[in-house]
Formats: sequence, structure tokens, C-alpha cells
Amino acid sequence: MLEYLEDLHFSDSDLSYLATLRGNDGKILFEPAFLDYLGELRFECDIDGMPEGTLVFPHEPLLRVQGPLLQCQILETALLNIINFQTLIATKLSRVCQATQGDPVLEFGLRRAQGIDGALSASRAAYIGGCAATSNVLAGKLYGIPVKGTHAHSWIMSFASEDEAFRAYAEAMPNNCIFLVDTFDTLKGVKKAIEMGQWLREKGHQLVGIRLDSGEFISLSQEARKMLDEAGFQEARIVASNDLDEYLIDELKAAGAKINVWGVGTKLVTGYEQAALGGVYKLTAIRDPGEEWQYRLKLSEEPIKISNPGLLQVRRFSDAQGMFSGDMIYNQTQPPVDAPKMFNLAVPEKHTLLPANTPYQDLLIPVLRKGQPVIELPSLEQIRERVQAQLAQCPAGIKRLKNPDVYSVSLEYHLYDLKQRLINKARSD
Amino acid sequence: MLEYLEDLHFSDSDLSYLATLRGNDGKILFEPAFLDYLGELRFECDIDGMPEGTLVFPHEPLLRVQGPLLQCQILETALLNIINFQTLIATKLSRVCQATQGDPVLEFGLRRAQGIDGALSASRAAYIGGCAATSNVLAGKLYGIPVKGTHAHSWIMSFASEDEAFRAYAEAMPNNCIFLVDTFDTLKGVKKAIEMGQWLREKGHQLVGIRLDSGEFISLSQEARKMLDEAGFQEARIVASNDLDEYLIDELKAAGAKINVWGVGTKLVTGYEQAALGGVYKLTAIRDPGEEWQYRLKLSEEPIKISNPGLLQVRRFSDAQGMFSGDMIYNQTQPPVDAPKMFNLAVPEKHTLLPANTPYQDLLIPVLRKGQPVIELPSLEQIRERVQAQLAQCPAGIKRLKNPDVYSVSLEYHLYDLKQRLINKARSD
Repeated sequence: MLEYLEDLHFSDSDLSYLATLRGNDGKILFEPAFLDYLGELRFECDIDGMPEGTLVFPHEPLLRVQGPLLQCQILETALLNIINFQTLIATKLSRVCQATQGDPVLEFGLRRAQGIDGALSASRAAYIGGCAATSNVLAGKLYGIPVKGTHAHSWIMSFASEDEAFRAYAEAMPNNCIFLVDTFDTLKGVKKAIEMGQWLREKGHQLVGIRLDSGEFISLSQEARKMLDEAGFQEARIVASNDLDEYLIDELKAAGAKINVWGVGTKLVTGYEQAALGGVYKLTAIRDPGEEWQYRLKLSEEPIKISNPGLLQVRRFSDAQGMFSGDMIYNQTQPPVDAPKMFNLAVPEKHTLLPANTPYQDLLIPVLRKGQPVIELPSLEQIRERVQAQLAQCPAGIKRLKNPDVYSVSLEYHLYDLKQRLINKARSD
Repeated sequence: MLEYLEDLHFSDSDLSYLATLRGNDGKILFEPAFLDYLGELRFECDIDGMPEGTLVFPHEPLLRVQGPLLQCQILETALLNIINFQTLIATKLSRVCQATQGDPVLEFGLRRAQGIDGALSASRAAYIGGCAATSNVLAGKLYGIPVKGTHAHSWIMSFASEDEAFRAYAEAMPNNCIFLVDTFDTLKGVKKAIEMGQWLREKGHQLVGIRLDSGEFISLSQEARKMLDEAGFQEARIVASNDLDEYLIDELKAAGAKINVWGVGTKLVTGYEQAALGGVYKLTAIRDPGEEWQYRLKLSEEPIKISNPGLLQVRRFSDAQGMFSGDMIYNQTQPPVDAPKMFNLAVPEKHTLLPANTPYQDLLIPVLRKGQPVIELPSLEQIRERVQAQLAQCPAGIKRLKNPDVYSVSLEYHLYDLKQRLINKARSD
């Protein structure tokens, strides 16, 4: 996202195109003076944000942009595109990793992703979320993500027999042999893979594993594990792939499937059951130069969809063990007292008074000032580690795959009060 | 897709990256000679395909690649990515257009799309599928798609009142006024939009319309229509947007909502209820230079998932009125006789003998020969027109949004026979 902002400008060809646009009367839509202004535009906003890899809960601001109105407005769509999608996929992958209980997850989604760049950004987000490697070699090249894959069914089908295909692969890539065993008959395929494993061993190499891509995974993986173990290939891994998601993986693990590595594709890189995250970008305060802030909100028939006014910050409280115990959104121009009173965002009647000295951290930190970076950006590895550290601090009930507990997000008392006053005023206008 | 193929090559930086990859023993994965070979690779396959904008039904080959095995294999993932996603979105949009019964559809999906390029390719596919315009200005610039949009809620919120915001917009863009009326109270917003419409009229301009983005669309649109008509704005359009898809639009139309233009975003550009199309790329025949073709298939426990062998072509039959009556997949090395016998792909017991002289068209046409284009590519407008022409030839029952009839796709007799023989052989090996 910061790369996008640093490069933000209107090129001559952009401006020429915009100059061609017409209104409903056939006359130009944009005055030449406005286009000249766009041509000279250089990004000079301040941005505060949660460091990438921070856990964020519904309705919390994770990025705050402050600057000239036009510049803030121009960013809206690109920011939402970049942040919504990558947040969605990183979340999905962290759920998948939770289901595999530590088994590595491989991201196999390129062929079903939504565009080439949809695939690349999904690979990046999946790695942040915890996946071990991707089959997208370009993502490996661009982001330094480990790449892993196996041969395809078409490799097998290009030979007269499965034996011949395995042999040719083992000769070409003796140090990378994961045989796809389900082209014709899975257990016969496992038998042939074991024979090739013995051949590899004689040549001083090692069978990495086998891959199941169809069929009934529980019994097939148990049978394959038994065959591999009996043949002395206890180290060989069993990779599974085929429309997997966190729910199916959870069920397979519970039923005793002997799978060590999980390849997840379509249902990961598209979100699938949830194909979009509904993050929004809202104007919360405005002022003329040198004047006081005026706070703004957008009404909605649904109370939870009414936006929060103010220069928003999120304070995350922890318990004595360092586990996250709840978040509070507040207005930075009215910083909370110690032991603040707050109102639950979803259930306002539920209000809390925190004990004094509850440990906390404010989550939005300065990222850009006048368009220039003021922090050193973390590496992809650091972001990935942050996700794991954050997940470790998150109570188990919140992370449960099905029927999770709801994490408490509240409005600080003064902000709650400001919001009520603005709602009443807007409704009475 | 053809742009991708024409530019297909491995750059020096690609090769340097590939040279860094290691196998499980820490040794290099790719021999230097192989990487040199990749560096010199130039695409020289033959491709036959259905012209873009052709209706295609499940299990039909829509693209056939013939050439050196390695080149054919390298294409797999990129082809699937490009074709699956754009086919999905064009189909989704044509369903949405069917629901609007001729009302224009605007594509508003950029902010929730899966990556910047996911958004661009979705805009392109949506336009092919029949949408009237996009809010993605870059898609307008790159592909020549008409662009349309309205101001945002944040425009309203940046002013002290809705009146003031409408007035400022009308002064800045008098020839492009669609007022978003739901920021505070929809019907009060309509009243203010009408006042601005009168102001615009005095200045010699015209109110284009209003936009509803929340609330209960049926009664709000009926009430707004009544208010606009009574004020003499019969021409002003009512645009609706907010999590719309073909099912909701269909219900709103049936319930008498007075909406003229439909903005569709998230649920269009991500597929949403179906976020991926499961197109596959299969090896169907192989030969050594100068030798006979050997036909190949991939088995599956599910009969419908067993791939079809042969050099496949699709023949589409029509009835006397020119309506599509059924498709037949055949092997080009055994061209069908007139009045061919064929077996339904989903229900093989159902076989058909067509009358002699049934009109037909073969759908796959030569696109590339030795990597070079042999047809002139159609413009985006031509592709879009082809979709409409094809839909007009498609029986209504097939296009029904809910519980559609199933279009008949069959295997020609000789191909059916070849497939059975190969299945029996593979199962007995």
C-alpha cells in the first residue's frame, strides 16, 4: 500500500484520458485548470496505521489518513481494494493454519485466483497469515516467499504408463520427488511411488513424499501411511489437496486422516465462502486551516453501521498474562483518563469501567508524515512473525473456527457521547 | 490472453531467480542447461479457441493448445487464471443484466475486488457480459469502457449540510448531477435533490438523477419516483446500489421497485456466491514426431470428471429458427458423419440420433499457428455484441436464473467409444 502511495501521481496519459470524458450534455466533465492541478499533485498526507500483521476486529479503524480533502478522497478506492482483499486472505489462511494444528500449508491458488495480481497479492497475504510456501513462482521471485509444488497429472498422462512417468521425474529431479499418485488408482500409485522411493534411495536420494488430489482422504491417507511405513519410508510426507478449507481440514484431522502437508487453493485465494471483506473509508473530521475540528458521521438505519466521528485511535487492553482483553476506540483530541468508562459498540447498554493501571497499547502509529515514511517498514518475515505473536495473545475462544466468542470492542465514554450528540443533530436536521 | 502468449518468455531475472531454487538436499533444482533452454524459449504452439463472447457449457473444451509438450505445459496456470475468472464475471454480469430486463447496469466493484488487476479484468469481463459502464476510471482508460459514477458520502460529509454539499457539486459539475440522497434521511435527500434540480434547470442544465445506497428500496424508490414526477423531473433516473445481485434485482423488479439504473459491485466483481470457476486444462493426446496420436484421459471416481480424450472440437446444432438445440464434442481425427449418433455427457444412457442436414457450426477456430495470430482479434464492442447475439439464440429455459433447464452436451459416438476403451484399459492396468 505504501508503494502505491509513494508512486501516486497522474501521468500525462491519465490526464489526456480524463480530458476526453464528457457530461450528459456532451460538454467536458473536468475543467482544464482542475486537470493541471491533478498533474501537479504530489501526495502529502499524514497516515497513521496499525502495523501490518496486527489483529484487527470489526468496526475498528486500522488506518487514518489526514491531509487535504481532495488527496484523502483520491486514495479511497485503491486503499480499500488493497487492504480489504489482503486482510481477507491473511485471515483465511490463519484459520486454515489453525485447522492444520501446525502442519505446513501450501498455497496452490494461482489458477483459480481473480486475476494475476489477485493471485500475487493472495500469495503475499497467505504467507503473512502463516502459509509455508506457494506454488506461484512469480510470488516467490517478487516477495521471497518459499516456492513448492509437485508435478501435474499431465506429467503422468504424457507418458505411456505411471511407472514410466514417475521414473522420468525421479531422474530429472531426484531431490524434489513428491509423486502425485491419484491419476489412475491411488493405492496402486502409492505402490509405484514406494518402488521409486527404493530406486531413489539406492541412488543416494530421498523420497520427499506423495500427494493425494482426489478421493476419500481419510482411508486413503491411512492406507498410504501404512504402506509407506512398512516399506521404511516413515519420513515421506503425505500431501493432500482438493477443495480444502479450514472446515474440511478440521474434520479430516478429527477423523484421523494421516496427512502431513495441506495444499489449499481455490477456497483460500478467493475467500470463497466469503469473497470480500467489507472494510470502508469514512470521513470522520474536517477543519478549515487554523480552525477547530468539526466531527462528522454517516447515519444508517442499522446502529452498528453508523460511522464513528473523531480523530480515532484504538487502545488494546491486556490482562496480567498479556492476553488481549478488549479494545477501546477513542478520539485523540479527548484522550481517555486512566480507568476509562466505555460502551460496547455492538451492545451499548453493556458498559465497562476498567480498573486503574490496566496495561494497554495504542495501535495506530505514525507511518507517513507529509507523504514521507517515518518508520522503517517491516520485512515480510517480520510481518508474518507478528501475526503469530498476536494470535498467541488472542484468547482461544475468539479464534474458535465455529461459533467463536465475540471480542469486546467499545467506545470510550467521551466519544460515545459525541457520537450520540451528532446522531441526534443529524436526525433532527 | 493472447497478449500474455505473445509476450511469453523467461527474462534474465526470472532465470536468475529459478537458478536459486534448491531441492530437499540443498542442491540446485534446475540444471543450468535447462535454464538456458528456457531463456531461448519462444512460444510456437497452435491454438484453436471459441471466439471470445461465445456461450460455452460445462465440460466443453473452449481452447485447444497443440505444440511441444513443455510449452503446452507452461501455459496451464496462466491460461486457467485468465479464462476462469473472466468467464465467471462475464457470466455473472449477463445474469445481472437478465434480471434488470434491459435497465443499464453499472459496475462499481473496484474497492472490493481481489487486487487491482482483479478489478481491471472484472471490469473488462463485466462490460463483455453486458454492463453499461464502470466506476473504474483506469479500466475506462485502458479498455475504452464508458465510465460512470456519482459523488460519495464523504462529499456530503465534508460540508456543513447536505444542501450545501449538493449545491457545491452542482456548481462544479452541472452536467453530471446524480445526487446520493441517503447520507442522513433518504426522502429528505430526495427533496433537496429536487430543489437542486430546479436550480440546475434555471441555469440551463438537467438533473441526471438520484442514487439510493441503503434502506428499503421498494418503497423508497416508489416514493422518490412520485416526488420527482410531481416536480416535473420525469426524466431523472433513480440509481440503486448496495449489495445487489441478480436474485435481489429480480425480486425488486417483481415487487415494483422504481429503479432505472443498477449499480452492482462486490457481488459482481468477486463472483461472491461463486468466487471461482472450475475450468481445467487437460492433456488429451500426445505423439512423437511423425507418429500416430495416442489418446489420453484422467480417471476419476466421478464419471463426469473423467476427461475426454482426442483432438477435441465442439459442434453446435441449431433448430429451424436458429436457436441452439444442443452441442456435440467430437474428435477431429474422426470427423462425424451427417446425422451423427451421440451420447449425453451427463446421462450416457440418453442417446440421440440427429436428423440429416441439421444445421450446425464448429466452435473452435484457428487463433494462433506457430505462435502467430491467424485471425484479427475482435474489439471489445464486437465481443460484447457477440454475447448478446449468442444469448438471443439460447433457449429461455436454459437462461432462467433459478432452476434452469440443462443444455444438452453430448459425445459423438466414436469419441464415446474411444473414451470407454481408454477407461477400461486404465482401470485394468
